[in-house]
Amino acid sequence: MAYKNLLVGQSGGPSVAINASLMGVLTEGISSAGVGKVYGARNGIAGVLADQIIDMGMLEDPNQQELLKATPAMALGSCRYKLADPDADDQDFKRIEAIFQKYEIGYFFYIGGNDSMDTVAKLNRFFTGRNLDIRIIGVPKTIDNDLVLTDHTPGFGSAAKYLAVTVGEIIRDIVIYPVKSVTIIEIMGRDSGWLTLASALPRLLGGDKPDIVALPENVFDEDAFLDEINRRFADSSHIIAVVSEGIRDKDGAYVGSIVKGDGVDSFGHKQLAGVGKYLELLVKERIGCKVRSVEVNILQRAAAHLASKTDLDEAELIGREAVRLALEGKSGQMMAFERVSNHPYQVKAVSFPVAEVANAARMVPEEMRNIDDPLCREKAREYLLPLIQGEVLQQRDENGLPKYFIL
Amino acid sequence: MAYKNLLVGQSGGPSVAINASLMGVLTEGISSAGVGKVYGARNGIAGVLADQIIDMGMLEDPNQQELLKATPAMALGSCRYKLADPDADDQDFKRIEAIFQKYEIGYFFYIGGNDSMDTVAKLNRFFTGRNLDIRIIGVPKTIDNDLVLTDHTPGFGSAAKYLAVTVGEIIRDIVIYPVKSVTIIEIMGRDSGWLTLASALPRLLGGDKPDIVALPENVFDEDAFLDEINRRFADSSHIIAVVSEGIRDKDGAYVGSIVKGDGVDSFGHKQLAGVGKYLELLVKERIGCKVRSVEVNILQRAAAHLASKTDLDEAELIGREAVRLALEGKSGQMMAFERVSNHPYQVKAVSFPVAEVANAARMVPEEMRNIDDPLCREKAREYLLPLIQGEVLQQRDENGLPKYFIL
Repeated sequence: MAYKNLLVGQSGGPSVAINASLMGVLTEGISSAGVGKVYGARNGIAGVLADQIIDMGMLEDPNQQELLKATPAMALGSCRYKLADPDADDQDFKRIEAIFQKYEIGYFFYIGGNDSMDTVAKLNRFFTGRNLDIRIIGVPKTIDNDLVLTDHTPGFGSAAKYLAVTVGEIIRDIVIYPVKSVTIIEIMGRDSGWLTLASALPRLLGGDKPDIVALPENVFDEDAFLDEINRRFADSSHIIAVVSEGIRDKDGAYVGSIVKGDGVDSFGHKQLAGVGKYLELLVKERIGCKVRSVEVNILQRAAAHLASKTDLDEAELIGREAVRLALEGKSGQMMAFERVSNHPYQVKAVSFPVAEVANAARMVPEEMRNIDDPLCREKAREYLLPLIQGEVLQQRDENGLPKYFIL
Repeated sequence: MAYKNLLVGQSGGPSVAINASLMGVLTEGISSAGVGKVYGARNGIAGVLADQIIDMGMLEDPNQQELLKATPAMALGSCRYKLADPDADDQDFKRIEAIFQKYEIGYFFYIGGNDSMDTVAKLNRFFTGRNLDIRIIGVPKTIDNDLVLTDHTPGFGSAAKYLAVTVGEIIRDIVIYPVKSVTIIEIMGRDSGWLTLASALPRLLGGDKPDIVALPENVFDEDAFLDEINRRFADSSHIIAVVSEGIRDKDGAYVGSIVKGDGVDSFGHKQLAGVGKYLELLVKERIGCKVRSVEVNILQRAAAHLASKTDLDEAELIGREAVRLALEGKSGQMMAFERVSNHPYQVKAVSFPVAEVANAARMVPEEMRNIDDPLCREKAREYLLPLIQGEVLQQRDENGLPKYFIL
C-alpha cells in the first residue's frame, strides 16, 4: 500500500503568518518519507465537505515556498463553519470520512483559532471512535493572541509589529500642530487586549505616548477617561489613546454599543462606527478640543509588508513540527510555543491535547495591565519585544509591488 | 558683511517626504558658500511670528541628514496660519520683517501645499514692495498631488505606494471567504482623485480588483453605484470599491455629508469624515450583503516605513534646487517637476512664479478617469508607476523599531 496522503486546511480570520504555517506543513509533508501526496482543502472544512481538494505539489519549488510564506491571509481560503457534536449529528463527519477515504488522507492539519480547535477536537473524537488511523493536528493562529497554553500565537507578532510601527508614525503625524488635540486609535481584540498592549510599544519602550491605553481586561469608565485626558493636557498638547474595540463598562456592556446597535447613538447621530468614533464624539462634546479617531481595521492583520521575521519563522516551524508529531503517531493535539528564555529569546514547539484548548481564552495578565506602572511596562516589553523582531524581504514583481502566492 | 542666513519652515498637512525636502534645503544651505547659518522655524510662519527660530547646524552630520530624510511628518512642526492681504493689513508682515532682520535672514524657504504657496506669494509681494533683498521660494509638498504646473508633488509617490500595497493586502484579506461581500475603502483627497487612482494600482496593473474606483472628478450617483455592485456580483463574490473622501453628487454636494456635520477648517474647507461609512450603510440597507468600510485615514500620509525611494530622493532634490535658485537671485518662485521621459523615467526640477500656482488645483485628467477603459488604465499606470519605485531602508533602533529625527 502507498503512503498515506496529507491534507491541510485554513479557517477563521486571516493573519500575516497563517500561510507560513501552511508552507511549513506542506514542505515538511513533501520532504517526509512517511507522507504520500500533499493536498489542500479550499475554504477549510467547508471545502472538504464540498470535495474541493487541491494537489499542492507545486510547493516542491523553493521559490513557491518562499512566496507562500510571505503572502498574507489564506492562500487556500477560509470558512466559518461549525461542526455539530458528532454524537448528536454525524452527517458531516461521515461525509468527511468519505472524502478522506477518496484521497487516502492519513494526516489532517487544521490551521486556525479557537473555533478551528473545536473542529479538530470533534474530528479527532469521531475518527478515534471509529477506530480509524487518521491523525489530526491543530496548528494555532490568531492575531488576537488569546489561545491558552501557548506563550503566543503565530500571526500576533506581525500584527504587534505593524501596530507598534504605525502608532509610532501616527505619533509623529499628530504632534506637528501647536493646537490641543486628542487622537483615539481603535485596535482589534474584542476579548483580550494583547494587540492594544502591542500598540503601546512606543510608550513601553520609553516614549511618552500613547498617553492612555484602554484594554478590555480593565473596566472602562468614561468620566475617568475624560478626567485623565484633562489631567494629561497639563503636560502635553497632544493626547493619544489606544483603545481596544472590546472595552466594556462596569456592567460589562461594550462602550459605545448604542452606537453600534440601533443606528442612533446617545448624541442623536446616525450609526457611525465602533468605539473609536464613539469616544471621538464623547471627547468633542465633553472637552471640545480637536479630536480624531483612527480605526486601524483589517490593515493590522493584512500588512504582510511589515511582517515580523520571528513570527513567520515560528509559524513555519510550528507547521513542520505538527507534521512530525503526526508522523510519530499523535492525534488530537494542538501545537503550542513554550518560551524557554528571553535573553537570548528561545522558544520550542510543544503540544497539548486540543480538548484542553478549545473554547478557552487567554487574557493579558494582571501584571501587564497598568501601563502607568514602570514594572508593568517592563514585563510587557520583555514579553512583546522578541516577537516583533526581524525584517521579511518580500519578493517584488516587475512593477515593484509585493508578489503573492495565488492558487 | 557676513553672508546672509537661511530660514526654512514647514506648513500644512504632513507627508512622508516633507522632511526629505527640509533635509535638502538645510544640507544644500550648509554646503553653499553664499549661505551663512541655517535656521528652522518651529510651526511654520506661526513660529516665525513667535520668534521660535532654531539653529539647524546639527544637519552637518550625515547621519542626522539620513535620519531626517526618512522621518515622516514635520520635524519642525506645522501650522495652519493664513496671512492677511499685505495691502489691507501688514501687521504680521512687519513682525516677520523684524524677525528676519534679527536673524539676518536673506533666504526663506516654505515647504507646503496650496495654502503655503499663498503665504509665499504674499511674503514675496510684501518684501518686493519694500525693496528688501529677501528671497522667498516655495517648495511644494502634498500627498494630494493637486498642485498645478508640476508633474507631481513630493509626498504623493510614497502615499501612492502605501495605498497600492495596502489595497493589495486588503484584496488578499477579503477574498478568503466564500460569501458575497462588499468592501469600501475610503481614500484621502478632498478635491482631486490622485490618491484614489493610486489605490487602484492593483487593477491598473492587470488585476481584477478593486472593482469600482470613485474619483471626485466624476459625478457620483448612488443608484448607479449600487447597480454596478449588483452587476459585478455576476462575476465575483467580493466587490471592492476605492472611494475618494471628496466624491460629490450631481448637485455638487459631498456624498454622505449629512452624516458628517459641517465643521469647516480655517481655510473654509469642509472637514470630511465618513463617506466610506455612509456607503457601507447604504449597501447594507439596499443590497443587504456583508459590507465593510475601511478608512485608511492618516496612515496613508504617515507610513514612512513604506516610503518610495524615488519620492524621497526627488523631495530632497527639489529642496536643494530651491536653495540654488535663491542663490541665483530668484524669488517668489515655486519649485516644480517636469517629467522629461517615462522610459527611462527622468524628471528635472523647474520653477514658476508662485502667483501662478497659489489657490489653483490640479485634477486627474479626463483621460485617466474611467478605469474600465484599457487606454485609461495604461495612461494612469504610465503616470503612476515611476513615482512609487524603490525601497527606503529606515534606520532601526536597538528594539528593531524605526528611528526618527526628533528636535
